[in-house]
Amino acid sequence: MTREIQGNTEKISEFTVRRLSNYFRILRELEVKGVTTVSSARLAELGGITSAQVRKDLSYFGNFGTRGLGYKVTELKDAVIRILGLNHRWGMALFGAGSLGHALFFHNGFREDGFYFTHVYDIDDEKIGTMWRDVEIRHVREAEDRLRAAPVEIGVLTTPKESAQEVVDLMARVGVKGVLNFAPKRLELPDNMWLRNVNLAVALESLSFYLSL
Amino acid sequence: MTREIQGNTEKISEFTVRRLSNYFRILRELEVKGVTTVSSARLAELGGITSAQVRKDLSYFGNFGTRGLGYKVTELKDAVIRILGLNHRWGMALFGAGSLGHALFFHNGFREDGFYFTHVYDIDDEKIGTMWRDVEIRHVREAEDRLRAAPVEIGVLTTPKESAQEVVDLMARVGVKGVLNFAPKRLELPDNMWLRNVNLAVALESLSFYLSL
Repeated sequence: MTREIQGNTEKISEFTVRRLSNYFRILRELEVKGVTTVSSARLAELGGITSAQVRKDLSYFGNFGTRGLGYKVTELKDAVIRILGLNHRWGMALFGAGSLGHALFFHNGFREDGFYFTHVYDIDDEKIGTMWRDVEIRHVREAEDRLRAAPVEIGVLTTPKESAQEVVDLMARVGVKGVLNFAPKRLELPDNMWLRNVNLAVALESLSFYLSL
Repeated sequence: MTREIQGNTEKISEFTVRRLSNYFRILRELEVKGVTTVSSARLAELGGITSAQVRKDLSYFGNFGTRGLGYKVTELKDAVIRILGLNHRWGMALFGAGSLGHALFFHNGFREDGFYFTHVYDIDDEKIGTMWRDVEIRHVREAEDRLRAAPVEIGVLTTPKESAQEVVDLMARVGVKGVLNFAPKRLELPDNMWLRNVNLAVALESLSFYLSL
């Protein structure tokens, strides 16, 4: 049974976690601006949601804020960081060094959050041996040995869909715990792993939905 | 007031629209497999949500399905296509021909959904004049004239954050109605436009959240 992060069947729903990511960004911005306290109404306004929703989301995780005074920005931000697991350095292996893989590898937002690529694999001889920052692109046939020697928690999949399941099976064998999948393919994972599918077309579909109203 | 597709303050929430995209993919897959009817329980199972949620989502948009018999797959898929505005060819302009722009331009899922890039702009002289499929990469200084002559509904932004607002202002002047923004920057849009921000780190944060439980 593949544990996909999707919808609301988990105890904490996908949508709650998305909102937590959003609170994290808002709080970080407020902190940079020197704001020290924030009301749930203001958080709601900045997040495009209701203040009842803000209070409900944050109540899952403990008692934050004081009635009438609001939340302390830094304290709440640090709590959200802990809740999201961002007080930790996450090692990642990238499979697929095409243009999407390249964009992800060099995406600054990941490092700021503590997500570091330490392995890159491909099958294209032209790419093997190339350095991306301090990481050498290796052939995927080396991946199993290398990931046993230097394990990571997260695998990022940007291969063609034809090889996606094979790569995920490899990830399972070397103890990867979470998979971020960009391949348009329904994957089967053992149930001690988490899967998050990213479909770039979904964001466009929400635009076409609102543009068609 | 920027109209960002985010949270639940719109009449139809971002989360409902995301689920519609998910129903669309599930129904398309079922149709390919030759399945002709599907229950809300089965849709819910495939979508990782409750069947009450399925019935609620679909009830916003009309009367689908028959009690005890379920939904007709093709009929429901076609309805979801219309609801999402995918029974339409959407023209798109890409700003930023870096690796992310390249990955988006060549992403097959967009064309399957009816989203076509017809313009690509950058400022890098090495890229200007290059052909991507049948589209020539042009300098952004040509964008305003060219987009007036051959308008598009959607602009996709993968420029550095420093130039993002300037590009969006240009989009507003030439009548772009929806913006898909990958730049990590809060943008200001006139209120006849829709904005959808995509933050790739958010998907990783949901993984780190569940991996930290």
